Amino acid sequence: MDPKKLESLLRDVQTNALSVDEAISRLVHMPIRDVGHSQIDTHRELRCGFPEAVFGAGKSAREIVEIATVLLAEHDRFFVTRVHDEGAEAMLQAFPNAEFHARSRILALDQRPAPALTGKVLVVAAGTSDGPVAEEATLTARALGADTELLEDVGVAGIHRLLAHTERLRAARALVVVAGMEGALPSVVGGLVDRPVIAVPTSVGYGASFGGVAALLGMLNSCSAGVTVVNIDNGFGAGYAAALINRDYSSREL
Amino acid sequence: MDPKKLESLLRDVQTNALSVDEAISRLVHMPIRDVGHSQIDTHRELRCGFPEAVFGAGKSAREIVEIATVLLAEHDRFFVTRVHDEGAEAMLQAFPNAEFHARSRILALDQRPAPALTGKVLVVAAGTSDGPVAEEATLTARALGADTELLEDVGVAGIHRLLAHTERLRAARALVVVAGMEGALPSVVGGLVDRPVIAVPTSVGYGASFGGVAALLGMLNSCSAGVTVVNIDNGFGAGYAAALINRDYSSREL
Amino acid sequence: MDPKKLESLLRDVQTNALSVDEAISRLVHMPIRDVGHSQIDTHRELRCGFPEAVFGAGKSAREIVEIATVLLAEHDRFFVTRVHDEGAEAMLQAFPNAEFHARSRILALDQRPAPALTGKVLVVAAGTSDGPVAEEATLTARALGADTELLEDVGVAGIHRLLAHTERLRAARALVVVAGMEGALPSVVGGLVDRPVIAVPTSVGYGASFGGVAALLGMLNSCSAGVTVVNIDNGFGAGYAAALINRDYSSREL
Amino acid sequence: MDPKKLESLLRDVQTNALSVDEAISRLVHMPIRDVGHSQIDTHRELRCGFPEAVFGAGKSAREIVEIATVLLAEHDRFFVTRVHDEGAEAMLQAFPNAEFHARSRILALDQRPAPALTGKVLVVAAGTSDGPVAEEATLTARALGADTELLEDVGVAGIHRLLAHTERLRAARALVVVAGMEGALPSVVGGLVDRPVIAVPTSVGYGASFGGVAALLGMLNSCSAGVTVVNIDNGFGAGYAAALINRDYSSREL
Amino acid sequence: MDPKKLESLLRDVQTNALSVDEAISRLVHMPIRDVGHSQIDTHRELRCGFPEAVFGAGKSAREIVEIATVLLAEHDRFFVTRVHDEGAEAMLQAFPNAEFHARSRILALDQRPAPALTGKVLVVAAGTSDGPVAEEATLTARALGADTELLEDVGVAGIHRLLAHTERLRAARALVVVAGMEGALPSVVGGLVDRPVIAVPTSVGYGASFGGVAALLGMLNSCSAGVTVVNIDNGFGAGYAAALINRDYSSREL
Amino acid sequence: MDPKKLESLLRDVQTNALSVDEAISRLVHMPIRDVGHSQIDTHRELRCGFPEAVFGAGKSAREIVEIATVLLAEHDRFFVTRVHDEGAEAMLQAFPNAEFHARSRILALDQRPAPALTGKVLVVAAGTSDGPVAEEATLTARALGADTELLEDVGVAGIHRLLAHTERLRAARALVVVAGMEGALPSVVGGLVDRPVIAVPTSVGYGASFGGVAALLGMLNSCSAGVTVVNIDNGFGAGYAAALINRDYSSREL
Amino acid sequence: MDPKKLESLLRDVQTNALSVDEAISRLVHMPIRDVGHSQIDTHRELRCGFPEAVFGAGKSAREIVEIATVLLAEHDRFFVTRVHDEGAEAMLQAFPNAEFHARSRILALDQRPAPALTGKVLVVAAGTSDGPVAEEATLTARALGADTELLEDVGVAGIHRLLAHTERLRAARALVVVAGMEGALPSVVGGLVDRPVIAVPTSVGYGASFGGVAALLGMLNSCSAGVTVVNIDNGFGAGYAAALINRDYSSREL
Amino acid sequence: MDPKKLESLLRDVQTNALSVDEAISRLVHMPIRDVGHSQIDTHRELRCGFPEAVFGAGKSAREIVEIATVLLAEHDRFFVTRVHDEGAEAMLQAFPNAEFHARSRILALDQRPAPALTGKVLVVAAGTSDGPVAEEATLTARALGADTELLEDVGVAGIHRLLAHTERLRAARALVVVAGMEGALPSVVGGLVDRPVIAVPTSVGYGASFGGVAALLGMLNSCSAGVTVVNIDNGFGAGYAAALINRDYSSREL
Repeated sequence: MDPKKLESLLRDVQTNALSVDEAISRLVHMPIRDVGHSQIDTHRELRCGFPEAVFGAGKSAREIVEIATVLLAEHDRFFVTRVHDEGAEAMLQAFPNAEFHARSRILALDQRPAPALTGKVLVVAAGTSDGPVAEEATLTARALGADTELLEDVGVAGIHRLLAHTERLRAARALVVVAGMEGALPSVVGGLVDRPVIAVPTSVGYGASFGGVAALLGMLNSCSAGVTVVNIDNGFGAGYAAALINRDYSSREL
Repeated sequence: MDPKKLESLLRDVQTNALSVDEAISRLVHMPIRDVGHSQIDTHRELRCGFPEAVFGAGKSAREIVEIATVLLAEHDRFFVTRVHDEGAEAMLQAFPNAEFHARSRILALDQRPAPALTGKVLVVAAGTSDGPVAEEATLTARALGADTELLEDVGVAGIHRLLAHTERLRAARALVVVAGMEGALPSVVGGLVDRPVIAVPTSVGYGASFGGVAALLGMLNSCSAGVTVVNIDNGFGAGYAAALINRDYSSREL
Repeated sequence: MDPKKLESLLRDVQTNALSVDEAISRLVHMPIRDVGHSQIDTHRELRCGFPEAVFGAGKSAREIVEIATVLLAEHDRFFVTRVHDEGAEAMLQAFPNAEFHARSRILALDQRPAPALTGKVLVVAAGTSDGPVAEEATLTARALGADTELLEDVGVAGIHRLLAHTERLRAARALVVVAGMEGALPSVVGGLVDRPVIAVPTSVGYGASFGGVAALLGMLNSCSAGVTVVNIDNGFGAGYAAALINRDYSSREL
Repeated sequence: MDPKKLESLLRDVQTNALSVDEAISRLVHMPIRDVGHSQIDTHRELRCGFPEAVFGAGKSAREIVEIATVLLAEHDRFFVTRVHDEGAEAMLQAFPNAEFHARSRILALDQRPAPALTGKVLVVAAGTSDGPVAEEATLTARALGADTELLEDVGVAGIHRLLAHTERLRAARALVVVAGMEGALPSVVGGLVDRPVIAVPTSVGYGASFGGVAALLGMLNSCSAGVTVVNIDNGFGAGYAAALINRDYSSREL
Repeated sequence: MDPKKLESLLRDVQTNALSVDEAISRLVHMPIRDVGHSQIDTHRELRCGFPEAVFGAGKSAREIVEIATVLLAEHDRFFVTRVHDEGAEAMLQAFPNAEFHARSRILALDQRPAPALTGKVLVVAAGTSDGPVAEEATLTARALGADTELLEDVGVAGIHRLLAHTERLRAARALVVVAGMEGALPSVVGGLVDRPVIAVPTSVGYGASFGGVAALLGMLNSCSAGVTVVNIDNGFGAGYAAALINRDYSSREL
Repeated sequence: MDPKKLESLLRDVQTNALSVDEAISRLVHMPIRDVGHSQIDTHRELRCGFPEAVFGAGKSAREIVEIATVLLAEHDRFFVTRVHDEGAEAMLQAFPNAEFHARSRILALDQRPAPALTGKVLVVAAGTSDGPVAEEATLTARALGADTELLEDVGVAGIHRLLAHTERLRAARALVVVAGMEGALPSVVGGLVDRPVIAVPTSVGYGASFGGVAALLGMLNSCSAGVTVVNIDNGFGAGYAAALINRDYSSREL
Repeated sequence: MDPKKLESLLRDVQTNALSVDEAISRLVHMPIRDVGHSQIDTHRELRCGFPEAVFGAGKSAREIVEIATVLLAEHDRFFVTRVHDEGAEAMLQAFPNAEFHARSRILALDQRPAPALTGKVLVVAAGTSDGPVAEEATLTARALGADTELLEDVGVAGIHRLLAHTERLRAARALVVVAGMEGALPSVVGGLVDRPVIAVPTSVGYGASFGGVAALLGMLNSCSAGVTVVNIDNGFGAGYAAALINRDYSSREL
Repeated sequence: MDPKKLESLLRDVQTNALSVDEAISRLVHMPIRDVGHSQIDTHRELRCGFPEAVFGAGKSAREIVEIATVLLAEHDRFFVTRVHDEGAEAMLQAFPNAEFHARSRILALDQRPAPALTGKVLVVAAGTSDGPVAEEATLTARALGADTELLEDVGVAGIHRLLAHTERLRAARALVVVAGMEGALPSVVGGLVDRPVIAVPTSVGYGASFGGVAALLGMLNSCSAGVTVVNIDNGFGAGYAAALINRDYSSREL
């Protein structure tokens, strides 16, 4: 709870500008709006700097549209990930201006004036097949205000392809490194830069890759310090964290 | 390879200030010094901003002392983690000014003038037993120049203990959250702040905690965006990454 | 075996009201009726307080209808879980008065006079996607006579959404807490109440959630005492156990 | 937070009986006392009905004694589980009246007048080797006010040993069933009673028992409804939950 | 190699009834017939008492028919398990007299005079859903000459259903016990009889049953001696082993 | 329950030779004797053909001696497996005539007249390191009346060592095949004989043998029919099952 | 980097035959060609002796055709594995001379004059179902210039089928051994030959074969030295490695 | 079996130079010598090119000495791996000329004239801690006649340390690459050379390295073709396979 708001509310109670019952009610219920099946947390933007991003995979087309409608009304934007085909169709019908990125299955709309992108998040992908996850990370970081670039197909089996981009790697404020199979790329990148590296294992591979577990374990055991890891295929989480790192807090009071 | 150095070297070749053979030699061998069993990468500080930190667990007391001697000569400091008793004894004999932190088993020496600590890294630990890992993270971040604080024993089973510190949580530039058992703390913290959260699972627990796997999986599946994860008990990695995030790059050319 | 029935039977033997052969037969075969493929245990209601609930997933439509027919004749009700589409269709044709809950895939009919619901079981779900399992728990507990409520979308990433309902949590006789991903919600709820909490991991999540294993491990390692766990997605088992806990045994001889 | 206390506090603010600053302070800091390494939550008894039970395994002898001292001062009792030898020795020196149960490694002291035990919790153990865990459950439930009994060595390989106690099983308000190896006992017990059964897998076994995982999985997959599960060897959690179930809430306002 | 055949062959060499080259050839190549993709081992009946049973799952319809044709020519019978729909159709077209058991997906033909079945193999199944695997075991044991019976739906949650059949259990020469979920049934049966029990875990269950792993581990850790285990859903292997145990070797030279 | 005893007991009730109360008591309590910590099932020999064999690993020296004393009094023999050093010492002091087999850690005493060993159980071990488990199987089968032989160090990497013993393999009534590492031996043996093969995985190996899991999985997936499996290192269970198979039931009524 | 090329380039700089800027550019960018989504490494043939083989599984039909077009232009050949139906159709339309191997799903074209095959790689498969993987290994090794043979259906359950081919086994320069289920074949083969054996586990099997994990573990734990392992179903990797081993390096400078 | 020996033996039978009985005996028993607990396969050198190397870990000091004595008598050398301290002491007492390598725990003696080492096996190790396994590989390959070099501490986090040795890597006939943690080194090396790479995962690491499983999975999923893998810490197997690959078969008849 924000102490300043708490102080203001308490002072209102002290001066009888606010009744005790109303104060209790505000303290407890205010920040939440109930939309039937989902309690949409409209305070989340205040608290976390981003309106509720919606994970589309487990929701019906109708639920996605309803949630998006509320979010758009409150925040002038929404950002839905892992949209299934049915959901995408329903959303594009409801919001013809929304943009659907078929590779990463992100469906988003932002009606605010375009913000200036700042800093630099570099998303690096080991192989062509890691592309969807890399795009999810790229779009997420960009939606959160980060100037973002994508560098693809620079896996460790041809190490010179990666080394050719060393300067680009070193110029980023934060890096997202996406790889499947043995997941070795973040270790190599982490040894080349002095910036935070967020590793994203992908489910690309077969047999003993166990749907991305091999890459996940490889990244958790990276011999390069400065590497942190998100869940398998979680491009959204990686892009989100990279954008938080990339954000310039210097002009804000801490 | 640094293009500026490469250019300078090539220009020396062009002007015959440097022979071709010498140029080849420099290009290939220069950044590495061989100390017998370990090839100590003395370029690492340039590349990654920190002289080689040494993982003590798999090395003999003699090896640790030898490596530390080289590092101290080159960098005026060393930072050894997971030092076993024998190693600690040998090191303190060799370097009486070094400091040994028994709880986290870190043994470090920094002979440079004390640098000004900047920013704010907050290390949060769920329980008393998570202390050693939390201390490893704290000392690492501090050694890398971050102003660092430690907040202990605020696990989710008594959620009000944590909420009492909400403002402190929100004031940090980067957070390290350390927890064993079900590893739920980073999710709750991640929902309270808009800063990057690095989650560290610990091996605290028994039975189906599987030496920290339960906490690790919980953290990888965190429902809070902005949470990234390091290996079980890897306080060093978390502190390292947090310090990179915390660092103010605005005054440096990218 | 019920000692009273045993005594009565033995007395009948003593008085020759029952032949020895018949006594053997009754002792061994009486409580069981054979329906070909399934031996329906019609004594189960006496023993466990609930007529045999049927797990529909592994059975053909025809088998489900046959079993339901026998149960309805004996008990005036049936309660089938995990009904596949084909089974639901066949059942609704055979029993037009039965109710099919599509979200939780429960198909039930109770022709007895509506019993008074007692106590209070609160089912809490972390996210919208946990809804089907939460509904399975709710309907099961209600079918077993518990007054039951459902509280949805109060996951730990927005902890204030949950805290706003603290009093409702504390008013329940037993709680069922349903969560996927990291499964942290039962730990937080368990720290807020002094009533038994039954945790249900769901298979909601992706990657290293391993179909609910991450949530399951998180719950088994809960730092809150008083939390017990059922199988992944097992809303039925949780609702059943909660109803047993909720039941008022004070008026019954023990 | 308790609405009544909140109301009372707010009324004090309204009447100026309490300053705003003091109100803020009370709202945020009051329920917590800091003992250096551990923030002992002295409100926990109010919230959860039991003063903080201490998990001894991960703490030094000194830490255990310090925490116990605070708890005893506040609550006239403490209850420490998994005490190592060094801790037990230190505790018995500090608290000569405390009782140490060597089999279950519980060390407890209760200086309050002995409370009347109520209800009936039956702890059932499959084999002799499951004894320590069964004792941990028994002592925990008893410390929480439950009249508790222990029934040992009634594993499923000799099913008649168990059936001989059917009436005792059926007379309990709640049952804790402890088993290692294949963990089948809770399923059989669950089929004989209509009361809640809490299953505790133990690490008894070898080879593919994987330190209790086989028993844990067996219990999670029990074909008997009404069975819930706690972590491997977690006798404390099972006894705690059983005591909560056993408690008579009828005389308390809900 | 059969010493008698070896001796006879060597004697033929000694007496020049057989040339050395021919002897080499016979020693090496004789027992094997090549059918292109599969080397059908027509000596297997001699060695193992059963003509090659064919695992249909990984083979094309054409391959199955070709192999069956060879087997029928050599042995007057074939026995194909796990036949997919396409394979079943092709086989029934090729062999109209063959019998297809849809539940267990076995397709077999035996043109020999019906052999007298001997001994007694009892196949016991815990639930209705375990039926297909139980039938596979039953048909396999019968095809190998064992008099076989099937007892279904006697799971441990209603232990009296099983106990009602104690005498039948005790009358068998060998038992196959089929169960999914927690796989406890073999332990209980093993405690009731003094005959070998072969346990078959099935993939029946959900969540943490992990496709039969829970049942498998339960059975491997059975507290009843005399229980051995086969692979998940491997009714064939269990029926085969039971038939070998059941076989009367007393009239045969060893 | 034995129908004959049941009939006799019921007839006694019918003729008033036995009171109803006494009959209830006998039906329920008779076969069990309570020794404090362990309920020793003295009916087990009747039911399972072997007095309770004791698993020594989880029991104290005192417990083992007490249980052995009861067993010896009832059955003139005992058979304790996995005896730790302390237990062995105490037992040999208490029973100087007992025999301790240090390699397999079995401690046994049989005061009955030596029974004639029958049939043939062949225990086959892949390597020298599998010896302890093989000896456990051998001694167990022999204690149960089977004529038993041991064939060691015939692993599959030198297949001719095994083939040299083909006739011995084929002469056994039942085989126990013990192997660590990849556990391939039972598959090869199973292809050479037409008798039941019981496979015992051992924990011999390192790295990805995972304490015997690799061998266990190999054996469960054996391509040879007729192979069944017991738990890792479970020589006792394998020897027990082999003895049951080996037993000649032809002279007994079924 | 090739020292000779480096020297030549540096000499060109020294003599001003090459500008410094151009030298930098060549050093860094030359070996890589960008095709939009994939950076095709056209230097790979020089470095690794084989033009980039394409893994078709994760790529769209259009991507496969584009990549193949570039490869064909540069190398006069391509070799695509795991081609899905859509990809095969598109490729055959684009390259009517290409050959599609439906069993192993390899689609390849080589427009160079047919090279002389050298050495001998023997691919051995345990069962009919292992055929697709064995064919993938065979075609890969052949494409890399190895004279290759295939020996199928010689699994360990009929060990004489394998032994009949001992001389063929011993004549190979390198062996690839393909097996599913328990994966025992490489151990047996490894004991018969003194050449390198590459083991390929296949996902053939069911239940506790865990999609090839059982075979993989078996092979990693092989008791035969000289056996190395590739990923489950990775016939390509095995054939590739075998061809490298088989290659005659004697005529090349090392 | 060697056809030439078989032919010669059969011809002796034909000419009565050998009796049939003797021929049977020779065919079956000749190549094996029994030393009590171990059947030492003295034909193994003929078959596999190396006298039986002994795995010391699971054997007693006495057993090791006995086996070594036989091997020395037959082959003038022995090579024992994983010797425990007690075994090393006993061996050095029995064979004072033997050499004990404490780091890799190899104890070997070769009394033959020193053979000329041929070819080139390069053993590459990622970190100092991987040294023992790398030494085991080096000594094994050398004992098998390969000219062997060791390159240490060139892990991927400092990729330039490795690249500085590119020519050395490319000059080897076969490479063994040893790495713990994420196990990425073989992928990078495999992309730099066109020779076979044998990857050895080590148990170096902590937490989610799971004793080497992370490295093992990383290597199995290597994106570089030509990489094959051995068991965790299996330096012996890697060195053995590398020596087989390195061997020049061109001068030998195949």
